[in-house]
Amino acid sequence: MPYNAISDIGEFGLIDRLAKLVEPTLAGTPALVKGIGDDCAVYRMSETSLQVATTDLLAEQVHFDLLFSPLRLLGGKCISVNVSDICAMNALPSYALISLAVPDSFTIEMVEELYTGMSQAASEYGLAIAGGDTSLSRSGLVVTVSMTGETSDDRISMRSGAQPGDLICVTGTLGAAAAGLKVLIREKHIMLDHLSGNEPYSMNIMANLEEYRDAIGHQLLPVARLDIIKFFLEKNIVPGAMIDISDGISSDLRHICNSSGTGAIIHESRIPINSQARDIADELQEDVITWALGGGEDYELLFTLPPEFACAIEERKDISVIGEITEKETGILLTDIYGMTINLSDLAGYDHFRR
Amino acid sequence: MPYNAISDIGEFGLIDRLAKLVEPTLAGTPALVKGIGDDCAVYRMSETSLQVATTDLLAEQVHFDLLFSPLRLLGGKCISVNVSDICAMNALPSYALISLAVPDSFTIEMVEELYTGMSQAASEYGLAIAGGDTSLSRSGLVVTVSMTGETSDDRISMRSGAQPGDLICVTGTLGAAAAGLKVLIREKHIMLDHLSGNEPYSMNIMANLEEYRDAIGHQLLPVARLDIIKFFLEKNIVPGAMIDISDGISSDLRHICNSSGTGAIIHESRIPINSQARDIADELQEDVITWALGGGEDYELLFTLPPEFACAIEERKDISVIGEITEKETGILLTDIYGMTINLSDLAGYDHFRR
Repeated sequence: MPYNAISDIGEFGLIDRLAKLVEPTLAGTPALVKGIGDDCAVYRMSETSLQVATTDLLAEQVHFDLLFSPLRLLGGKCISVNVSDICAMNALPSYALISLAVPDSFTIEMVEELYTGMSQAASEYGLAIAGGDTSLSRSGLVVTVSMTGETSDDRISMRSGAQPGDLICVTGTLGAAAAGLKVLIREKHIMLDHLSGNEPYSMNIMANLEEYRDAIGHQLLPVARLDIIKFFLEKNIVPGAMIDISDGISSDLRHICNSSGTGAIIHESRIPINSQARDIADELQEDVITWALGGGEDYELLFTLPPEFACAIEERKDISVIGEITEKETGILLTDIYGMTINLSDLAGYDHFRR
Repeated sequence: MPYNAISDIGEFGLIDRLAKLVEPTLAGTPALVKGIGDDCAVYRMSETSLQVATTDLLAEQVHFDLLFSPLRLLGGKCISVNVSDICAMNALPSYALISLAVPDSFTIEMVEELYTGMSQAASEYGLAIAGGDTSLSRSGLVVTVSMTGETSDDRISMRSGAQPGDLICVTGTLGAAAAGLKVLIREKHIMLDHLSGNEPYSMNIMANLEEYRDAIGHQLLPVARLDIIKFFLEKNIVPGAMIDISDGISSDLRHICNSSGTGAIIHESRIPINSQARDIADELQEDVITWALGGGEDYELLFTLPPEFACAIEERKDISVIGEITEKETGILLTDIYGMTINLSDLAGYDHFRR
């Protein structure tokens, strides 16, 4: 029996293989409209109404570091990342289930802090925390949230709905979450260096993090763009295709194009870069556009819009049109600020299993 | 700020406190019929149909030991324990989402083995695996399954539905899962002793596990009693209250009585002990009734039945009537084979957080 490393095929290669294994289970459930391959699974509840469902697992030392992630914010983030997947289907969140694996070292109050953050975020998004499972972990903290939402046949947006000629739009600004993480990791290493050298360490020698507040906030407690979904509902806008930006727009745009059988062209000059991310990139001498394209966790929405809706979004200053869907043969392209064209198919997004 | 150990209040004490924290989130979701406090959350899909939803997290070294849990069986078990929760609501399973945190040391083929077990079990239960999340773990394997099912207002069984005079019934036999675990742990220690002493270890010096096959099977791959739910549907039987036996009948009967505001009396002589579990208990000089009362993981169903349904279950040899629901004031009692009465409120079930 051959044994192959997951890193050879990466997260998405693995998902493709697992999707094939579960295909036989889909036959017995005709109400399932869409299985693996979008931000959410889609399940028919009635003649017109659809349930969408998603799950996200956050593991200590992989998705978060308790050295710089306050538990209350972490709780909120666990809810936000799932609400973001629900939003990506143009749906409103209904209820969530929470599974916790809690290390032995955790106190009651620490679990309550985490749950308080989840509860506050859930109230803000208007969804119920309906149940869960709490057990011991022999290693780090693991939080799994699963969440359902509701939409309808005439409102749902899947990754596969893009058409040549659609505008490519992105909400908010990009790069802040990656920038915030860079600052937090830098500060962590300064602290650990002091401690390992037995040097005194106190708040006084920490950088003033106030100037990085926006970026750090985006990293520690991203906000899902439910406001955009409510705006779409109010204005009767239905995006062609939609995805939330969890792995960087390069990778997430590729998902849309591959599912829709299209190409795309986007323009670097139109990508809305977060201004604090730009400052941090300058300070650290890194490339902010790389964070926007290939960094993760911005949890903004990337969507395509049939041209007839173009006027309807004009009033929103927090929606940027960054390009256009093209025929498949064109490929997935970026024109940079010097007018050069780069093939985005070659740029990798964030992948847990790649080295 | 006081810091209190979770072990002071245990798993159920912690759940009570977390349930209070999420209560404010329930207000915004009128379709949620039941939140924390039963085997599943209950969500209204239409005027008569209800969705039930559950989640279970299984963590390495807490819920399973990869030294003696083949990955394919483990996959099946992760599905079974969730289907068992769906069954406990008198519902049929619809779809599942799978979250995996996979250690770096895992190969593609190992993840596929796990998924093959999940896919096979899902097909047997007639449910779809509709999506999931796969990411890296810096420590052990963690598998979280969330699952939905469907039932209706006139068929749902909650923990709170028991009435004085109801028969108390249990499906199948008890104690096998606990007995199987004892054998597996014994064999593991024999192997580790040999290996740590640099002594040769081979299949030849292992006990012949064939004679423990039934018990080991119950431990490694329990089967959820979906057959019973289908039997109830066919015969139009609706249990008063129902729960799946994951922590031992002592603890699970207490959940029913506390939710229903009743007492109960059960009779030791009527508890259906698994015969192989009895043999293993004799061999290990342990008390098999303790395993049935306080051991976990049998995943049989414990339910109460209004007396008018008594005839309808007579044909089923795999349903045992073990006692009767009483008024709350009576307490929760067990009469042992010598006619002595024991208060079951004093017997603890399995609790991850108690020491």
